[in-house]
Amino acid sequence: MQVLHMNKGNGDTSYAKNSTVQSKIISVGKPIMKEAVLEMLCNNVIESMGIADLGCSSGPNSLSVISEIMDTVEAANRLLGRRMVSEYRVFLNDLYSNDFNNIFMSLPAFYDRLKEEKGLECESCFILGAPGSFYGRLFPTNSLHFVHSSSSLHWLSQVPAGLESNDLKRLNKGKLYISKSSPQSVVDAYLLQFRNDFSLFIKSRSRELVAGGRMVLSFMGRSSTDPTTENSCYQWELLAQAIMSLAREGRIEEEKLDSFNAPYYAPCTEEIKDEIQKEGSFTIGRLEAFEIDWDGGAVTDIHTPHGKLSVGRRVAKAIRAVVESMLESHFGIEPDVMDDLFIRYGDIVGTHLSKSRTKYINLVMALTKKW
Amino acid sequence: MQVLHMNKGNGDTSYAKNSTVQSKIISVGKPIMKEAVLEMLCNNVIESMGIADLGCSSGPNSLSVISEIMDTVEAANRLLGRRMVSEYRVFLNDLYSNDFNNIFMSLPAFYDRLKEEKGLECESCFILGAPGSFYGRLFPTNSLHFVHSSSSLHWLSQVPAGLESNDLKRLNKGKLYISKSSPQSVVDAYLLQFRNDFSLFIKSRSRELVAGGRMVLSFMGRSSTDPTTENSCYQWELLAQAIMSLAREGRIEEEKLDSFNAPYYAPCTEEIKDEIQKEGSFTIGRLEAFEIDWDGGAVTDIHTPHGKLSVGRRVAKAIRAVVESMLESHFGIEPDVMDDLFIRYGDIVGTHLSKSRTKYINLVMALTKKW
Repeated sequence: MQVLHMNKGNGDTSYAKNSTVQSKIISVGKPIMKEAVLEMLCNNVIESMGIADLGCSSGPNSLSVISEIMDTVEAANRLLGRRMVSEYRVFLNDLYSNDFNNIFMSLPAFYDRLKEEKGLECESCFILGAPGSFYGRLFPTNSLHFVHSSSSLHWLSQVPAGLESNDLKRLNKGKLYISKSSPQSVVDAYLLQFRNDFSLFIKSRSRELVAGGRMVLSFMGRSSTDPTTENSCYQWELLAQAIMSLAREGRIEEEKLDSFNAPYYAPCTEEIKDEIQKEGSFTIGRLEAFEIDWDGGAVTDIHTPHGKLSVGRRVAKAIRAVVESMLESHFGIEPDVMDDLFIRYGDIVGTHLSKSRTKYINLVMALTKKW
Repeated sequence: MQVLHMNKGNGDTSYAKNSTVQSKIISVGKPIMKEAVLEMLCNNVIESMGIADLGCSSGPNSLSVISEIMDTVEAANRLLGRRMVSEYRVFLNDLYSNDFNNIFMSLPAFYDRLKEEKGLECESCFILGAPGSFYGRLFPTNSLHFVHSSSSLHWLSQVPAGLESNDLKRLNKGKLYISKSSPQSVVDAYLLQFRNDFSLFIKSRSRELVAGGRMVLSFMGRSSTDPTTENSCYQWELLAQAIMSLAREGRIEEEKLDSFNAPYYAPCTEEIKDEIQKEGSFTIGRLEAFEIDWDGGAVTDIHTPHGKLSVGRRVAKAIRAVVESMLESHFGIEPDVMDDLFIRYGDIVGTHLSKSRTKYINLVMALTKKW
């Protein structure tokens, strides 16, 4: 939690410049989000609407979801000929180390657009930063009406308990995440950590949302119950290969690879449903799985040498923007080795994708807080 | 508004490392702040207390005020044997370009201290960032109980109307702010801008505070009605001298000095009272003036050559941390010229202070929103 953050700023390796996959994921989930907003407006009288985006990160995606939610409300206002919501309280959440400065600098232009496009005055929309872990309380009781989170809940609060880096517990040698070769104890530790984290998430939000409030969550998962399925973990498998190739040349310590386990989990729908039902305060409206291309679905012919290279590079940059802070902290990699690592990773990914159409599975769910 | 920000980060020229004057000002105003908090608790039932610090900046001062306010509430809880406040909603405000990342990174340690020292759990204190200009609405109607602002309201929302940088209006040649040589039109433009800004501030807060809510404001002012008095503007006079000395060497454009007017105003108590009374929704409890040493009052003998140098340097660093963003934007000064500028400024300040005991006048006021 102290280490993970998307790459800051606006540079070439920044998350802001390399988040088209996450943008694609947001757009895939949009119909479900819009439906949830409308349903909620039909069933609730809302004077001041509390909206939270959890794991907002920084860059173009941070405010795009908020804008979509407000568009939906404003469209409903027009449709029904009355103001369903007269004030927005918008909370942008991410971990303490997130680049909030980057988001905040884009707010003046965002407020200008709200005024021009939606006719909203500055006294009817208040955008705040709410730094902290969503695995725990972030907001006062009954203060929110709509919670959104995209591309965030696959991050665990910590490396699974029992797999933390230390000499005694190298159960997952040569791997970064669950792999075909991982012992059952590794798979179990990951599932347990996910269960604990996700149930704490659900419990915390249950306190913060008003009855009838909605939550639309979207994150990496899997369509099979098998946690070693390619769609849920092969990006890590290939990253481990790239690290291993540098380790063989003595440029990264192999020991460090053995002791690294990503604080990540791609659950299946059953695992999610279990935790929601156990907690008991939400009903599940929708729970759908979408296939997402590793590079966000840009139109490139992977079967030409150039296409292979460019797809591989795009995937490598997208992954780098997300995992670099973790790798830097664990491996202590120098900048030039980091550059090499992601060049190799891009090559490996390009070659893999030219032979196999592995995709991410993104799960999107709409939950309603019970009355 | 788009330009002004305290120097970011934690480096040698950062505001975080050079804000002892502002810290001194906070501590001088502390008794008035504590009194206002206690008075409010005696007269109001507060379930969830909304506290805003406006112009929080970044660095050690940002959270110290919040901590003091909470200490006072917790002490009242103990004194009266019941919880007067069971939840804190804390809003840290500054302009969009403020270094919020720096504050947010210090929050985990701050929450730990709240738990250890005050026994406060994370679900009873929510700290949020509220970026934007306090010359306008920042919070929902009736959502705050206590507003604090220190060392911020002497910054105007813009260069006084009519004095903006352009060829036709070099009314204040060779100066950065009101000076003995400034024509009356310059003085009038400054006062008018202050009146407009401060009344908008008061009006905005009046909407946001609940009836009976308190506001403690502390900012640079003057004890005389004469706006050219040394105590209210001589730091600018000397900075203009330093810039002029570089201009004579062709290292800074003299034209740019002529066209620069700082968006700053040090009002007298009458000017403040006027605006508060005109707006009408606040009563003034206290309005006091304190003398503050330019270097925050460190114990140094100014009458030794070493003492003179070190006092001058401290003042120069403190001022640099605050005005560098503005000078950079207006003058386009290169880093080495900027360094030289503040070395010269330090020398000039040291020499001045060894001959004259010019001080800042800091005004502190406690206001109550009428029922």
